[in-house]
Amino acid sequence: MAGGTPPRASDAVDEDRLWSRHMTVAEIGGTPRGGVNRQALTVEDGHARALIAGWASELGFACRMDAMGNMFMRRPGTDPTAAPVMSGSHTDSQPSGGRFDGMSGVLTALEALQAAEEAGIATRRPLEAVVWTNEEGSRFLPGCMGSYAYAETDQLDRMLAIEDADGISVVAAVADMKAVLPDMAACPVGGEVAAFVELHIEQGPLLEDTGNLIGVVTGIQGTRRFEVVIEGEDAHAGTTPRARRKDALSAAAAIVGGLEELMHDPEDIVRFTVGRFDVTPNAPSVVPGRVVFSIDFRHPELAVLDSRGDRVEGVCQAHARGCEVTVKPVVRTSPIAFEGLVPDAIQATAESLGLPNMRIFSGASHDAQHLFKICPTGMIFVPCERGISHSEVENAKPGDLAAGARVLADVIVELANR
Amino acid sequence: MAGGTPPRASDAVDEDRLWSRHMTVAEIGGTPRGGVNRQALTVEDGHARALIAGWASELGFACRMDAMGNMFMRRPGTDPTAAPVMSGSHTDSQPSGGRFDGMSGVLTALEALQAAEEAGIATRRPLEAVVWTNEEGSRFLPGCMGSYAYAETDQLDRMLAIEDADGISVVAAVADMKAVLPDMAACPVGGEVAAFVELHIEQGPLLEDTGNLIGVVTGIQGTRRFEVVIEGEDAHAGTTPRARRKDALSAAAAIVGGLEELMHDPEDIVRFTVGRFDVTPNAPSVVPGRVVFSIDFRHPELAVLDSRGDRVEGVCQAHARGCEVTVKPVVRTSPIAFEGLVPDAIQATAESLGLPNMRIFSGASHDAQHLFKICPTGMIFVPCERGISHSEVENAKPGDLAAGARVLADVIVELANR
Repeated sequence: MAGGTPPRASDAVDEDRLWSRHMTVAEIGGTPRGGVNRQALTVEDGHARALIAGWASELGFACRMDAMGNMFMRRPGTDPTAAPVMSGSHTDSQPSGGRFDGMSGVLTALEALQAAEEAGIATRRPLEAVVWTNEEGSRFLPGCMGSYAYAETDQLDRMLAIEDADGISVVAAVADMKAVLPDMAACPVGGEVAAFVELHIEQGPLLEDTGNLIGVVTGIQGTRRFEVVIEGEDAHAGTTPRARRKDALSAAAAIVGGLEELMHDPEDIVRFTVGRFDVTPNAPSVVPGRVVFSIDFRHPELAVLDSRGDRVEGVCQAHARGCEVTVKPVVRTSPIAFEGLVPDAIQATAESLGLPNMRIFSGASHDAQHLFKICPTGMIFVPCERGISHSEVENAKPGDLAAGARVLADVIVELANR
Repeated sequence: MAGGTPPRASDAVDEDRLWSRHMTVAEIGGTPRGGVNRQALTVEDGHARALIAGWASELGFACRMDAMGNMFMRRPGTDPTAAPVMSGSHTDSQPSGGRFDGMSGVLTALEALQAAEEAGIATRRPLEAVVWTNEEGSRFLPGCMGSYAYAETDQLDRMLAIEDADGISVVAAVADMKAVLPDMAACPVGGEVAAFVELHIEQGPLLEDTGNLIGVVTGIQGTRRFEVVIEGEDAHAGTTPRARRKDALSAAAAIVGGLEELMHDPEDIVRFTVGRFDVTPNAPSVVPGRVVFSIDFRHPELAVLDSRGDRVEGVCQAHARGCEVTVKPVVRTSPIAFEGLVPDAIQATAESLGLPNMRIFSGASHDAQHLFKICPTGMIFVPCERGISHSEVENAKPGDLAAGARVLADVIVELANR
């Protein structure tokens, strides 16, 4: 290399290997329609992690897991006392999720470490590829639970006690999952991080629509989530007059309509979703006595989150129709902005690699929002087909993922040498 | 008895025994809130039937079961060629059902046979106590499946092939249930019936409100049931603009609102219920791609069933909101009227026993509506507390059940001697 340009980690990124790993992992929890159902801390989640840890171990990277099930794969630095630069995302999926959401962030992080290794590039700080537990929040609420406990360790005990719909706690689920990862060393929850970079598919259409390959993420919108419980009274569908009914489903349908009015936005920036909706006893000839549903409300502006979010309870009560309605706030995150070191490094690296890029805002929540509280943080978006995510038809291109991995590899090497 | 009045079966009805049997059977599938979850053809259903068949066998009544799982307990008549007089109802319950719905019709039928036996009253025709399979329709659709196949045997193969939500067919479920009834003899589906009388709790408040003990049922309202399938597209709740969504739950809520307008009835005679409502993938941060819900619509007048029922499809399509909506009719029964032989015998018997009685119309469907097609049929209602049924708090009084059993015993003896 004497006289030439210095070696770059990005040159050693292997597009075929990266794609092949995506396809191999996608078979674990794979669904007939081409997606995955690999919910947090299940045996499937464990099998996927075992595969990834196996690839890391072949490269000599030590693997460890903390009490939350967060998993760390470390390539050592030259300074054994330095805090690591971390990159990663999550391996859990929605019940009918896609092959790239989360997993691409984990596999490109591993690819970046491997590329640095194969390019023979030493870094002062260690590089760590990380898997955060239960990002999706579909099995356990809240989502981004692993990174949350890592960044705010005083929340650890509360997170460990949370139960899924079957009454299984996070503690028990981590133990179940670890059963398929018998050789994993333990490590504490939390610790110093020098910087965090997360690659993720965009989950929106902007990169594809504009022909860009790299999104330099400038921030994440805020979220308010609620659980609404409607208690009515089971009754016979054939005999009970409307005047005597306390029909929880009728009330729920009216509440959803009322909330849609509250969240109406001609500019289409408000994100309002009722995604979970459980009816009891759920039988055709019984007036439903109970409905529980979720509200997911997101916006980039704190003022809008506050003003409309604070009116949710009133709208729910206004359509109670004789039932007892309880509205419980379950998640509240403020919008955040990524600035300075990490996004600047991402943009500069994309430019130096000649990759078309744009600044972009994240509609989705990500683990990066918790790491942001404890270290310089940024995110790289790569295109996803038609912007469709949280869906079995979610798709991405091998070349786009490799482009993202190249930027990631050079960025974390640079950050680890500062 | 020389010189006195002839013995009556009603004199041998034992209130304590009848109540005690109700309480014993209620333990099978009993729920913490005092109801039962004993769905059709489950092991619990089998255990309940085994108990009842055991009581019948102790009395020397032969027990048989047909391919639908319908169960018959026979007290022989003096004429071995005569068709039987039948009485009975069902042992299956709603998922959160009560202790009397259906079961009271079975246990009072057995009590009536036992009373005739203990009073030493011979009848020309055999008396049969019967259990019809899957009346509730909560595990398999349609409800009243066993009596339907019995009355219309050309429907038998179609009924046997129907599957529950887990893909288990009626054929397989009957086989599973029979495993706990190893000694049950087999018999064909269908056959001649001389008359059918079904006792049932009212499932409405009229008898209680008016202080009557016996309802002489004059008819059953008609029912139209539909299954509505809404196909949208799973999408990310945080990133997908409303304009790009195909939100199946949003459409479903709007459709329910539209149907409530269609079914609006100031007289409160229309019965309209959405009881089952299943959302996929049912995760808080995923825009739901699919909703399936049931419509149950009942009315005493055929013209109303026709005119409003025929507009259901149009209302569903009008609120599709970009989703694909399919409306499938699953049940259509016309209102029926019980007249002549059986209701007249019920009323005359109630009078002769000095029991306050009234003519009453049934809001609920019952197995009697299918037997009505093949033989003289009628029903006896007894009071239920506050009219609440299809609920774990459903309740009835020992004395009221015994009053109904007395009427039933004398009526079936009279019918069996005609």
